[in-house]
Amino acid sequence: MTKIVAFGGGHGLAASLRALRALQRKKREDLDITAVVTVGDDGGSSGRLRADRGIVPPGDIRQALAALADENDPAAGQTVALLQHRFAGSDPLTGHPVGNLMLCGLMELLGDPVQAIDHVAAMVGATGRVLPMSCDPVWIEADVSGADGVETTVRGQHNVAVAKGVVRTLRLNPSRPAPCAEAVAATKAADWLIFGPGSWYTSVIPHLLVPELADAIAHSAARRLITLNLAVEQETSGLSLPDHLAALTRYLPGLRVDVVLADGNAIGAPEPVRRAAESLGAELVLAPVAVRGATTRHDPVALAAALEPILSAERWSPPSA
Amino acid sequence: MTKIVAFGGGHGLAASLRALRALQRKKREDLDITAVVTVGDDGGSSGRLRADRGIVPPGDIRQALAALADENDPAAGQTVALLQHRFAGSDPLTGHPVGNLMLCGLMELLGDPVQAIDHVAAMVGATGRVLPMSCDPVWIEADVSGADGVETTVRGQHNVAVAKGVVRTLRLNPSRPAPCAEAVAATKAADWLIFGPGSWYTSVIPHLLVPELADAIAHSAARRLITLNLAVEQETSGLSLPDHLAALTRYLPGLRVDVVLADGNAIGAPEPVRRAAESLGAELVLAPVAVRGATTRHDPVALAAALEPILSAERWSPPSA
Repeated sequence: MTKIVAFGGGHGLAASLRALRALQRKKREDLDITAVVTVGDDGGSSGRLRADRGIVPPGDIRQALAALADENDPAAGQTVALLQHRFAGSDPLTGHPVGNLMLCGLMELLGDPVQAIDHVAAMVGATGRVLPMSCDPVWIEADVSGADGVETTVRGQHNVAVAKGVVRTLRLNPSRPAPCAEAVAATKAADWLIFGPGSWYTSVIPHLLVPELADAIAHSAARRLITLNLAVEQETSGLSLPDHLAALTRYLPGLRVDVVLADGNAIGAPEPVRRAAESLGAELVLAPVAVRGATTRHDPVALAAALEPILSAERWSPPSA
Repeated sequence: MTKIVAFGGGHGLAASLRALRALQRKKREDLDITAVVTVGDDGGSSGRLRADRGIVPPGDIRQALAALADENDPAAGQTVALLQHRFAGSDPLTGHPVGNLMLCGLMELLGDPVQAIDHVAAMVGATGRVLPMSCDPVWIEADVSGADGVETTVRGQHNVAVAKGVVRTLRLNPSRPAPCAEAVAATKAADWLIFGPGSWYTSVIPHLLVPELADAIAHSAARRLITLNLAVEQETSGLSLPDHLAALTRYLPGLRVDVVLADGNAIGAPEPVRRAAESLGAELVLAPVAVRGATTRHDPVALAAALEPILSAERWSPPSA
């Protein structure tokens, strides 16, 4: 049994989880998958629900549950379709995916996001666990310097994601949110910790800003893998791929990494990336992981093919193996 | 296997279904239960959803599903609690039970209320089927004469239920709604058809106003049982219990009945009720079926105890047995 914890949020985390699910199916359940999801989302349905009802934003959690669902069970598949069904039209329900409302109801009913998520996980036959990085919603804030050199503070994940300018400092509000205890325990017990792909400042780095979770990441005996993005996003404009790696150690000094996975077609000249990886103690592995014809999205099948030899390589066998 | 179809809506139908579930558990699954639910509700959450999203009102369907759920499975129990969790507060979700939103999402997703209901039934381990009387929402309308003798037309289940005055004529709009084919088939194949308890004009009689369903009821070889109410409601003010029975044959002339079940403590002098029952071909059975100390609600356990000897009596053995 290889215990894997994947950190992220949104589409990047879902791609990573679908890749791990594909490996799990192939290897007959010898992967124990845990997803740890950022809870900073404040846009769309999730933003309305956290504002109106005080819950952790459910959208990225829902996407992770859908990614881990049992694809071979038609009933589970129909429940996933229900979770993902977004009300259209123009009434008070418009824009809410049903799964967000179910998670909201369960969180209110049970008073605990972890139990609420576990219940939906059982409903869709998820072969893995989804956890929030904190049981309380957090706000993502950034000091951003614009083209005019003026630095302003931008509040909220959505605003940070679309801010024009360069992110100088990222922080959470509250600045030291309580971690999800189950996420800390899974991190400590893991064989592999996987970061990315995903929006670097709003989905990946927030995990490093939750003190107890960051401590567990720093001190876990697990191997660590970073999957780099395929394209620059607005929030990381001006940030090279070596800068992406440097940003991790800025927020978690002393972080050591074993593998940096990137797509050779996306990174340009590999040498600067290789040197940045090596400065973290990591080997750069190049593999074609993009969806064919769409260079910005990871293909779960290709990502699974790239991950398989890494997770089974002798030289990266986890210390506990 | 005894095939039972229970017609109604709201709390009365739920009490009837809980009683049948109790018998089913005791007798180890030899009861095949189908609930046929009115789809005339236009108040509260159901009313908002049918107005905004054009679906059949889900509230009474949800209550019937909760009544048929597997009580011995904790996961199913938690899903029932989710279905029944009503959003509090004062935001756009307030007042909606989560189950109504799930049924709404599934009806939109699958384009078929029967498939949508079947999916939620599987989620809660329901040991019976819930069907709408029509796959389209209907409006209940009544001509009501007030204390001043003036007759007015009242539109909508909620308005009919609370109208001051005497209901002179009840009808549906559209006047001949398409029936749910599965409900017609279940009625034709049934051993027992059970009507009531429930709001007589807004939950029981509407089934007799769907032409093909009424035809199936009239011509089914099944035995027929009427469970009378324990108290007069606003919509039946001025209507005696014999009048309740007469109202059934007014809307379905020629209806023959086998058993009328009533609580001797609720009906006053039994003779008028007995004569009204006999005029439909039915025997009046008296049994204590009210919740102790609350004379207006049926107690499922007491109702089960009253139903058991009726459903197994030689003289009422269904023709197909």
